[in-house]
Formats: sequence, C-alpha cells, structure tokens
Amino acid sequence: MTTQTGRTALVDELIAIAGPGAVLTDAADMEPYAVDWRRMFFGTPLCVVRPAATQEVADIVRACARHGAAVVPQGGNTGLAGGATPDGSGGEVVLSLQRMACIRALDPVGMTMEVEAGAILQTVREAALEQGRMFPTGIGAEGSATIGGIVSTNAGGVNVLRYGMTRALVLGLEVVLADGTVVNGLRRLRKDNAGYDWKQLFIGSEGTLGIVTAAVLRLVPAPQHSVTAFIAVPDIDAALAFYSLAQSRIGDTLSAFELISAASVGLQEKHFGLKSPASGGQWFILLEGASSLAGIGEAVESLLAEAFESGLAVDGVAAASQQQARALWEIRERITEAEGREGRSVKHDISVPVTAIPAFLADAGKALEDLSPALRLNVFGHLGDGNLHYNVMMAGPGDDGAAINRTVHDAVLRHGGSISAEHGLGQYRVGEWLRTKTPAEQALSAALKQTLDPAGLLNPGKVLPRRDRG
Amino acid sequence: MTTQTGRTALVDELIAIAGPGAVLTDAADMEPYAVDWRRMFFGTPLCVVRPAATQEVADIVRACARHGAAVVPQGGNTGLAGGATPDGSGGEVVLSLQRMACIRALDPVGMTMEVEAGAILQTVREAALEQGRMFPTGIGAEGSATIGGIVSTNAGGVNVLRYGMTRALVLGLEVVLADGTVVNGLRRLRKDNAGYDWKQLFIGSEGTLGIVTAAVLRLVPAPQHSVTAFIAVPDIDAALAFYSLAQSRIGDTLSAFELISAASVGLQEKHFGLKSPASGGQWFILLEGASSLAGIGEAVESLLAEAFESGLAVDGVAAASQQQARALWEIRERITEAEGREGRSVKHDISVPVTAIPAFLADAGKALEDLSPALRLNVFGHLGDGNLHYNVMMAGPGDDGAAINRTVHDAVLRHGGSISAEHGLGQYRVGEWLRTKTPAEQALSAALKQTLDPAGLLNPGKVLPRRDRG
Repeated sequence: MTTQTGRTALVDELIAIAGPGAVLTDAADMEPYAVDWRRMFFGTPLCVVRPAATQEVADIVRACARHGAAVVPQGGNTGLAGGATPDGSGGEVVLSLQRMACIRALDPVGMTMEVEAGAILQTVREAALEQGRMFPTGIGAEGSATIGGIVSTNAGGVNVLRYGMTRALVLGLEVVLADGTVVNGLRRLRKDNAGYDWKQLFIGSEGTLGIVTAAVLRLVPAPQHSVTAFIAVPDIDAALAFYSLAQSRIGDTLSAFELISAASVGLQEKHFGLKSPASGGQWFILLEGASSLAGIGEAVESLLAEAFESGLAVDGVAAASQQQARALWEIRERITEAEGREGRSVKHDISVPVTAIPAFLADAGKALEDLSPALRLNVFGHLGDGNLHYNVMMAGPGDDGAAINRTVHDAVLRHGGSISAEHGLGQYRVGEWLRTKTPAEQALSAALKQTLDPAGLLNPGKVLPRRDRG
Repeated sequence: MTTQTGRTALVDELIAIAGPGAVLTDAADMEPYAVDWRRMFFGTPLCVVRPAATQEVADIVRACARHGAAVVPQGGNTGLAGGATPDGSGGEVVLSLQRMACIRALDPVGMTMEVEAGAILQTVREAALEQGRMFPTGIGAEGSATIGGIVSTNAGGVNVLRYGMTRALVLGLEVVLADGTVVNGLRRLRKDNAGYDWKQLFIGSEGTLGIVTAAVLRLVPAPQHSVTAFIAVPDIDAALAFYSLAQSRIGDTLSAFELISAASVGLQEKHFGLKSPASGGQWFILLEGASSLAGIGEAVESLLAEAFESGLAVDGVAAASQQQARALWEIRERITEAEGREGRSVKHDISVPVTAIPAFLADAGKALEDLSPALRLNVFGHLGDGNLHYNVMMAGPGDDGAAINRTVHDAVLRHGGSISAEHGLGQYRVGEWLRTKTPAEQALSAALKQTLDPAGLLNPGKVLPRRDRG
C-alpha cells in the first residue's frame, strides 16, 4: 500500500470500525507506540488503532488485508527485542490491544482465569492473589506488560524453574487469523486432547501467525510459606553442585535459583550501594523455596548447613522476614539498571543445558578475550533454567557489537544452546536466527508462516525475515 | 498404490532399507501390529517395518511416498482410540518404532533425558528413579507404551494434576516429516524462545503430521515423602468443595486427586473383592500428597480433620505404609477390568471445567435416562483435571452405542468440555470431532495437515477424516 489515497482510505475505514477516538495519526500521539522500550528501534506507523472488542480486531485485520497494509500487534510495549515496533515505512498499522483489558472470569476452585489480551499482568496477578491463587509468570515489567504480550512472547521470568514458561500456563486462546477469522478456543480445560492443539502455534510466535485477543490462564495455589537466601559459592562448579544438591533435597519447593556473578554484585554496589550480605565467592546464588508446609524454613537451613559443610557454599544468609527477602531480591533486580549506568553493553539472553554452564562460561570468556581483551562481563540469570543474561560491557567506541554478538552466540551453539531463552527474536535477533538455525528448521518455520499468513501482513520482519529479503 | 507389482516393489525397497528381518509380511507375524489393544479395530497392513535408526525411518517414509503408500506409525500399540491401527485396504505400511529403544543420555543435574521413540515408558521411569529423578507421566500401560507413543498422543495419567500432560515434559524432539526430511530439535534446554516452537505441532497429533523418532524429556526431583488417603464424601458438591479446600491447604503437594463413584467401587468389589476402606458416601476421593518435606503426613491429617469437621468427608483412611498405599490404588486400578467383566460398555474420556462437574453429571445423567432408563453408569476419573471416564454400561442388545456417545458428548459440549481429555481422537472419535468442532477450528486443523502432509500419507483417517471423505 503505497499511495497516499490508499492510506487515507484505510485510516477512514479504521475510524469507521473502531471510532475516531480509537485511531491515532498524530506523530506525538503515536510516539509511545512507535519506539520500543529499550529505544533501540524507531518506527513510523501509518496510524495506531486501539480496538475495544475482538470483532473490531477482526474487522481491522480484514481492512488492512484489503489495503495490503501490515499489522503490528502491540500490548504493553515492554518487549526487549523490538517485536512490537513498526518499521519506518509509514505504512504499517500498530494494533494496540490495551483497551481490551477485561478480566472476564476468575474461578478459584477450577483455578482458571479468562482475560482479554490487554489486561495488565500485574492486575491479573493481584486479582488471582485476592482469591488465594497465583498466576506464576512474573517479570520486571509486569506493571505495563499485558497478557497478550506475555502469551505472544511466551514470557519467562524468575519462577520458570517451578511453574514453567507462560506456555505451560495457557489453557485456552482466542485468536484472529490473517484473513480476519476469529478462532475461539477459550476452553477452561486442564486436559484436552481432542485434535491438534493449534493454540500452541500462537504462543511465542510474536503476532506473526495471528493475533491473540483473549486467553484462559491456569492458576496455581499460592504457597503460604517461603524462604529466600543469598549465598556466596566459591566457583561455578560449586554453584552447579549446590544446585544439584538443592534439587535432591528440596527440589519440589524451589521457586527460584538465580545465579549472579561477583562482577554483577559489584556493579550494583557501585551504582546503588546495596551491600551484599555474603562475600568470599566468585558467584552468588539467590534461592527461593516456597511451600504450603511450614517445614520449608527448616529444610532450607538444613540445605545451607550441608552446603557449607561440604564447601559448596562459603557465606550466606537466609531472610528472616518478608522485608529482608525483598532486600535480597533488590540486589538482583538492580543489576540491569546498574549496567545501564556503567555504560554501553551488548546484551544476550541465552540458554545452554544446565550442566554445560561451566564449560560455556569458560569457552565464551576465552573467545571474547581473543576478540578484545578489554571487554568486561556482567553475567547473571536463572541457573536452574540454564538461562544466562550474558551481557558484555563495551570498553570503547572501537568495539564491534555485532562481532561480540556472533562470538557469544557461536559459543552458545557449541554447547547446544539457544540464542534466545526468554526474550524472543523480535526484529533484533532475526539475523542471528537466520545465521544459526538449521535449514530444516528454517524451512518448517517458513511453511507455517506461509500457511497462516500467506500475504505476509502480520508483524512482518519479526521472528522470520521479511519475505522479500528471505 | 493399488497394483500388486507396486506393492511387491515397495516391500522390496523396505527390505533393502531396513534389512529382511525388519520387514514382516506374514499375516500371523503382523497380527500384533494390526489390531488395537481394545480389539475394536482390525487392520490389514501391506507389511510391518521395524527400523533401527532415524535415517532408516526417513528412507522408509520417502519410499512409501514414492509409491503412494500410507504410513501408520506405531509404538507399544496400547492406544485407546485406534490411532495406531492400519485400515483394511492391505496397502498401509505399519512403521513400528519398537527397535529404536535406546536411552541416549540421562543428566540428573540438568534433569533431562534423551531417548529414542521406541523406549518403553516404564524403562525410562525406572532409569530416572535410579538417579533420584522422576519422569512424571505414568499410565496403566507403561510396561508396553513407548515414549514416541506418549509424546504423539500427549498422554495424561494420574499425575497430570501436578506435573501436566506429556506436552509439559517434552523439551526437544526429532521428527521425520512427510517428505523424509529429518528435523533435529533435540535441544536439552529448559527455556528456548528462538523462533517458532514447531515441536508442539507433533506432540499430540498422533503421527499425522510427522513421525517422532526421539525426544528430550524433562525430569523432576523424586519426592521423598508421600501420603495416600481414601475418603468417602457425601455427594459431588462436597467432593468439589473438598478439592478446593485441599488446593488451599496443600495444593502444591497434591499429586493425585481421583474421583470414584460408589458404583465403580461396587463393581470392583463384585468382581475383585477388594473391600473399600471407607463407606457412607456417594463418591470417593483417592488423594495423594507428596513432598520433599516430611510435614506432608501431618498436613494431610490436618486436612482430613478439617474436612470431617465441616461435613465435606464422612469416612476415610490415610495409608500408614507404602503397602497400604498400594492397596488403596489397587481399588482404583481394578475398576476398568471390573467393568469389562460386568459386560459391554460405551467408554468416554471427557473433560469439563472442574467447577462444572456437578452440573455436567446431573445433565448427562438426565439425558441418558431419557434415552434409555436401564443404562447404568461407571464414572471415575481425575477430578482435579476435570477429566472423567464416564462409562455407560449397556443394558441389552437394543442399546445404541452411537446414540449414547452423542448424548454424553452433547452434554459435555453444553458445559464447555472436550470429547477427549487424554486418550486422543485416533480413528475412534474422528466422527464426533467432525460433528462437534467449530468450522474455524476444523479449517485451521486441515490447513496444518495440508501443509505438513500434502499427500495425506501420514496415518490417514486419524485425528482428521480421510481427505476423500472430508
């Protein structure tokens, strides 16, 4: 759709569908929808349309298809890979789901919740907690992130270890297909093997195969007792052995097992001044155990005693109150911001098999040193998931971000890992996906895209390359 | 492929690929592969081929495609819906994965296991337990069922409540596509958002989209302490209220919450004589709590006390030993066999939202009584999953099995349920799927089949209708 007349006609149609107040065309109004959260990608949409109902979404998709205009679905716009940012052509339509924010039903006995795509994650979590239930997906951006966004990106977070990715928490979906068909799969069932589980295709595909308009979520009982501990371990092998011990002793109660490098804690201390409650090791573990049984406190104490005795841990503290636990988590949560204050960095969201972490760290560290000896690392992540935020602080303007990226990803591949554990590909990692995936997987992915979006109008250039480039 | 010459040529090619000992053509040799476990479906295959490696599977699929012959993949042949039984045309090739039974790797620290499709479920579970880890999918047929089979059918079982269906336990897959392409996605990663999660398509699609040749499974720590209790509850509303109470008190430790009707216990007593340890209610609950924390015993006692006090339970016993626990489970496990001894029945594997169970039971019971007042019910299942084995005992030769089927399924649909919770559609439920699914879901399913198996040669007539009939 390249003519000005065509563009004006499409905007008029969208206004007719969603109402004049629901279509933004002014550049200043559109700016919050046109730039990603990390300010890496800057788009120029034709307009932003904010429908209030599934049928409006279907009508919008159909109108855009008639005009050959691409649709870029967007939730809270908190993605970390540019997956919800339009291109600079001035022809893409941002479809914001924010106004569809209704919690349609919450069943605390069946432990399900039906919500619209634009519902804020934090709102959903609070509504569940009020009924003694929990929606486990928890991420830093939960105050802005939407259910449609976390479903479309299969969001992770710190509790994946226990509850799985968002995929494991979706029971039903409603999606709008590229031709405007509404497929209603909003079943509130915990088991359903009646045919292909087509909803899986739309989870984690970042709006490139269809648009998620509502979901049925699975809730879990909220645990009554929890313990948080912050532990210094001598080296990465000890960290892994400590993890294995924790799994054997209290594995079913582990809700977080975070790995933090001494350098990360140092960065945080430098910029925020929160004093580490443990010292003497190269790595730290932030561990959370939670259970309906009060014995979890004693069990964690006993685990720590065993770890100290066997030399797997050298120092540590278990929180005696909710407030102390919050303080321990704050050390972890400040790391990303501290990194930003320190200077420019190249971020990686990688995973490797849990047992490959020590070998990967040695290998990647060596490869980066060969590339540029002045690079420093800020490594932290979810040890139990094999997911590391392996961030490389750039030493000067001469450092080549793309080369750093390739160096890290090549090491990831040598250890059987993934170039995106939880953030998704968006537009940021499409090139690396093309470079690193096998031809068979690329062909299969392209076939699915071709089937579900033959005209290539759903979020083009995200996850897969644009067709004309591919 | 209809000519005798073509058939002989294909058999010769298969022998060249897999070796003469790996191709069965004698009717007596083929019989165990040609009839389903329930002896509802009787097929006449062209031959049975038993490859020993993935590349042989690929070559076999390619040879069959060249000859236009359909391929029916088969594992332990324990399915309950005829999903692995060939048709009667004499032209379909049964591809048995049984010889590919290797456990390639078991990582107790990373808690993953890579196994070939033909590995026996029980063998896999025992191998994990030897390392203090557990593969949670457990079903009655685990001594024969294979990993390829449980992945392809997304098998359920009694522990779904806690660990999810098999889908939640698959980290990586290797599949052979309809054109013989091998797609290797055997990643041992707990988190991987690098592109479309294409493996989800092959889980639960019963070999109609591709053939699973190997999988990476997710293991969990084996809980050290468990308690089993058998409880009589006055009525179905009390059963549901008791379930909700159990979730609030010890939800994270619940690994089973089975519902058994008094009639089911009666059938079992009649044919096997195992005495029920509780009485006085219309329904029974078989509950299992398991934890790494020893406090689980006390917590279950306290839950039962609260249930008795509030009138949600009227009688019951908690097992004091592993042996007693086994005895309680045996009551549950004998029900199906007792039903068989009692006479002919129409079995249903349905699910409804957990909170809809009482209304569904009333509604379905009424509808069946209207159909034929002499029908009796044998209802038991997984309450926490909303999954009931709602079996109807036929009173005489005049009863119409298909009408009973439709009556039950119509009630299921009125309550937002599924006509197959865990057994899958196979060939048994394709007609009911066609009758009950929305056009949008049918079209989406057909589009996926068309993309991945354009010639319709992968397990035709299973999950979806055969193309010429569709």
